[in-house]
Amino acid sequence: MTDTWNRHHVLSLADFTPDEYDTVLQTANSFREVLSRRTKKVPTLQGQVVANLFFESSTRTRSSFELAAKRLSADTLNFAPGSSSLTKGETILDTAKTYLAMGTDMMVIRHREAGVPQAIANEMDRLGVKVGVLNAGDGQHEHPSQALLDLFTITTLLDPNQPQLSLLKDKKIAIVGDILHSRVARSNLWSLTASGAEVHLAGPPTLVPQLFADFVKENKDKGRLKASSKQPDSSSNLNPLAFPRKLFLHWSLEPALRNADFVMTLRLQKERMTSHLLPSLREYHQQFGITRDRLKLCHPNVKLLHPGPVNRGVEISSDLMDDPQFSLISQQVTSGVAVRMALLYLMGSSKV
Amino acid sequence: MTDTWNRHHVLSLADFTPDEYDTVLQTANSFREVLSRRTKKVPTLQGQVVANLFFESSTRTRSSFELAAKRLSADTLNFAPGSSSLTKGETILDTAKTYLAMGTDMMVIRHREAGVPQAIANEMDRLGVKVGVLNAGDGQHEHPSQALLDLFTITTLLDPNQPQLSLLKDKKIAIVGDILHSRVARSNLWSLTASGAEVHLAGPPTLVPQLFADFVKENKDKGRLKASSKQPDSSSNLNPLAFPRKLFLHWSLEPALRNADFVMTLRLQKERMTSHLLPSLREYHQQFGITRDRLKLCHPNVKLLHPGPVNRGVEISSDLMDDPQFSLISQQVTSGVAVRMALLYLMGSSKV
Amino acid sequence: MTDTWNRHHVLSLADFTPDEYDTVLQTANSFREVLSRRTKKVPTLQGQVVANLFFESSTRTRSSFELAAKRLSADTLNFAPGSSSLTKGETILDTAKTYLAMGTDMMVIRHREAGVPQAIANEMDRLGVKVGVLNAGDGQHEHPSQALLDLFTITTLLDPNQPQLSLLKDKKIAIVGDILHSRVARSNLWSLTASGAEVHLAGPPTLVPQLFADFVKENKDKGRLKASSKQPDSSSNLNPLAFPRKLFLHWSLEPALRNADFVMTLRLQKERMTSHLLPSLREYHQQFGITRDRLKLCHPNVKLLHPGPVNRGVEISSDLMDDPQFSLISQQVTSGVAVRMALLYLMGSSKV
Repeated sequence: MTDTWNRHHVLSLADFTPDEYDTVLQTANSFREVLSRRTKKVPTLQGQVVANLFFESSTRTRSSFELAAKRLSADTLNFAPGSSSLTKGETILDTAKTYLAMGTDMMVIRHREAGVPQAIANEMDRLGVKVGVLNAGDGQHEHPSQALLDLFTITTLLDPNQPQLSLLKDKKIAIVGDILHSRVARSNLWSLTASGAEVHLAGPPTLVPQLFADFVKENKDKGRLKASSKQPDSSSNLNPLAFPRKLFLHWSLEPALRNADFVMTLRLQKERMTSHLLPSLREYHQQFGITRDRLKLCHPNVKLLHPGPVNRGVEISSDLMDDPQFSLISQQVTSGVAVRMALLYLMGSSKV
Repeated sequence: MTDTWNRHHVLSLADFTPDEYDTVLQTANSFREVLSRRTKKVPTLQGQVVANLFFESSTRTRSSFELAAKRLSADTLNFAPGSSSLTKGETILDTAKTYLAMGTDMMVIRHREAGVPQAIANEMDRLGVKVGVLNAGDGQHEHPSQALLDLFTITTLLDPNQPQLSLLKDKKIAIVGDILHSRVARSNLWSLTASGAEVHLAGPPTLVPQLFADFVKENKDKGRLKASSKQPDSSSNLNPLAFPRKLFLHWSLEPALRNADFVMTLRLQKERMTSHLLPSLREYHQQFGITRDRLKLCHPNVKLLHPGPVNRGVEISSDLMDDPQFSLISQQVTSGVAVRMALLYLMGSSKV
Repeated sequence: MTDTWNRHHVLSLADFTPDEYDTVLQTANSFREVLSRRTKKVPTLQGQVVANLFFESSTRTRSSFELAAKRLSADTLNFAPGSSSLTKGETILDTAKTYLAMGTDMMVIRHREAGVPQAIANEMDRLGVKVGVLNAGDGQHEHPSQALLDLFTITTLLDPNQPQLSLLKDKKIAIVGDILHSRVARSNLWSLTASGAEVHLAGPPTLVPQLFADFVKENKDKGRLKASSKQPDSSSNLNPLAFPRKLFLHWSLEPALRNADFVMTLRLQKERMTSHLLPSLREYHQQFGITRDRLKLCHPNVKLLHPGPVNRGVEISSDLMDDPQFSLISQQVTSGVAVRMALLYLMGSSKV
């Protein structure tokens, strides 16, 4: 199963291959079976140490990683930024090297600045140590384990026994909301477009175009995409790009939802309004909130995803969020533990 | 031993049966034996997850539950409200459902508002999941594990081999202090009156009568009590009620202490004084503080309890608190681990 | 191996015997071997509870102790002062007794006031319980596990198979910086002078003499030292004392560095400048910072130590800190886990 896996670190999905996606999905699926047992534990990482260095605090994601590590029988260390040496002027690399020197085998890192997990991974490689670094969210850059759990949630729905990337081919997936600031969206862009799905981004102009132009530019520069760089056409609100990854941009909700198989809403940071990028929450909900009525535009079997925590009644109407016919939100959380177990397992086994 | 146990949740002692009390006491007593070994661990909950969701922070109670869970070999997750999604606007039910979706088997919940653990338990039941919810203190409502550890402390003193509810029959127990605001007192009222003990409440008028009237009214409404609702007679300072549970009310300390077998003092919240419910701490101590002198009013073998943390020299004089002839405070803490192991064990086994 | 060990508590190195130092070093060396395995765990303290009571917060030291305890298979409890009963007015001794009553076997204690771990140890002894107390840093008094890990780092460098105190005989060791306020320096003074090494203290007059005079006075009073009490001679900047422990004092860096085998720099607390004990950081670095140039004064094989976290470019130039030819900083962190495992193991086995 792990023949195709050769990564110590999981920092970004930009260069993930289809084989790697499928390895994660299949490994996570085997752990999903473990999690359905009464004793949800395997001895895989017995005696190893996973350090959760959450420079940006997060109970939800930290608990998910902590549980994944414990179910692999690893010992965990939690780093609490409030009470740390950082306040004493220590650099982040020095903190990481301290945890390395204590004997940490894997580091799960969240930081509000993009690039920090990569910088720590580079330092580990420079030192020649086989310590794996997992990006648990860095600034507005990436959050790969979230995109992988989204992928796992969707593909196990389509085929519970054999989840794989190709199941998404030609599916229509809408991503709605503050795409500009979302590391979740950035990671999902890589995985979902790699699957051959049609990905439709929708949000207000303040929260969409800049990201898009950046994304196109950045990847054209790296030779990854052959994309038109023309600005989205605001009159048609639809701008299909002539490029191998099927990515579309909309400044209104309807064209994104039309016949969509999956709708992924992003968390709206309330700070955005104080910075004048957004009108009121009510107005946002009127334009981009997912309601039962609007869902009629989608494919009849449409499913909703949200990385959580949800602002009820803003991104999604409260009753939809709890409706098991449509909402995959709870499955996403469950998938998170299985996918994070898979990532830690794969990173760990690439050491041997 | 667990034939008489049929609860997923422990939220309140209001409807506990004598059999249930005795099951908890006997189970806790068997775990007390485990705790006296060098290796204080049993594999009972191996691979299961206990989430401590302490929305109201508490090191002491959280540590006690964490230790109980670890000694049953469960994995624990701690929720720290400061760094949580709650600050991002997530609802409490959504937080609980997130921990459910991660695979939590039992939730231990503390919240400064009454009813939160019940609401979460209702939601778990509505969802049809077999997740147990334990109330670790909700507002001014209940704190059942504290009352059960008090009961265990007292009954194992009376019979170390066979602690049971009926040992308390006709004992006189005084509860002294801020009964109005105390969830500890409310839970203890249920357990102690159920045992057939005479329970005497004593405190300043501002901190006693309202609770009492509420308690009587609430339970008359539910048909549980047949109590006189007449106000306490301040001239006699004694008001025995004609009702099956033997509950008495006093606005001075002496009649409550007279020949008492056990005196339970409650923690005085210093906030009460700023809200004009209390004079100075010194004056409180003069009227209701337990001193060596006042203890002479009690039964010669009287024992003191306090849920902790104690304000030394306020509720109890400092030397009495440390006097092993009288103080059961340290035994209460020890009992806490055994009783919480018993509750988690019983809740867990009611699933099978 | 533990025949020479008879301590429940490790509070200070003032009365450590050479045999005790060697027992710690040899025990730590055997755990170092455990830590080099893939499964870095031994069942030594299975079922026992180590409580980390860090009244003064510290992620680095707390993580090191937590990892040491987990690798001995102990369960750990962490005390977070922010959310604790201390804010409710509980005394420190009451907190410790609460953890005792829960069933804690060993307590690791850090507090910003000197003497707190000793006071708790005294209380445990008074109560007749066999609970070990380890001082993890108390005010400006001592930090014995840090000095022991420094000793282990140095002696395993000199003889990886047989680290022992006598290897340091006649070595020259410089301790540079804020010796006045440093509990690390105070503990190291005991261990290093006990080894027969020449210990040279260097720092600005505001941060050195007072400590020194105190140290000499305090120990003359206790009959431990036969030292001259004359003040350091500021003209010569060198003051060899006629006393069995070879301790020297300098108000400039050069004489301390000359032919030194080891240079230990201390963390500079930035608060010192606001209290007018120090000029600017830049000026401090110019006078007492360790640079590649200044290192030429030392023995060619000189090694650098620092308890961390380092203010890069203040105590040590940044490139030196990362240069494995000179820096032992990372080894110190690694030694920390092995030495703390050894201390917990020895304290635990002295109970049997």
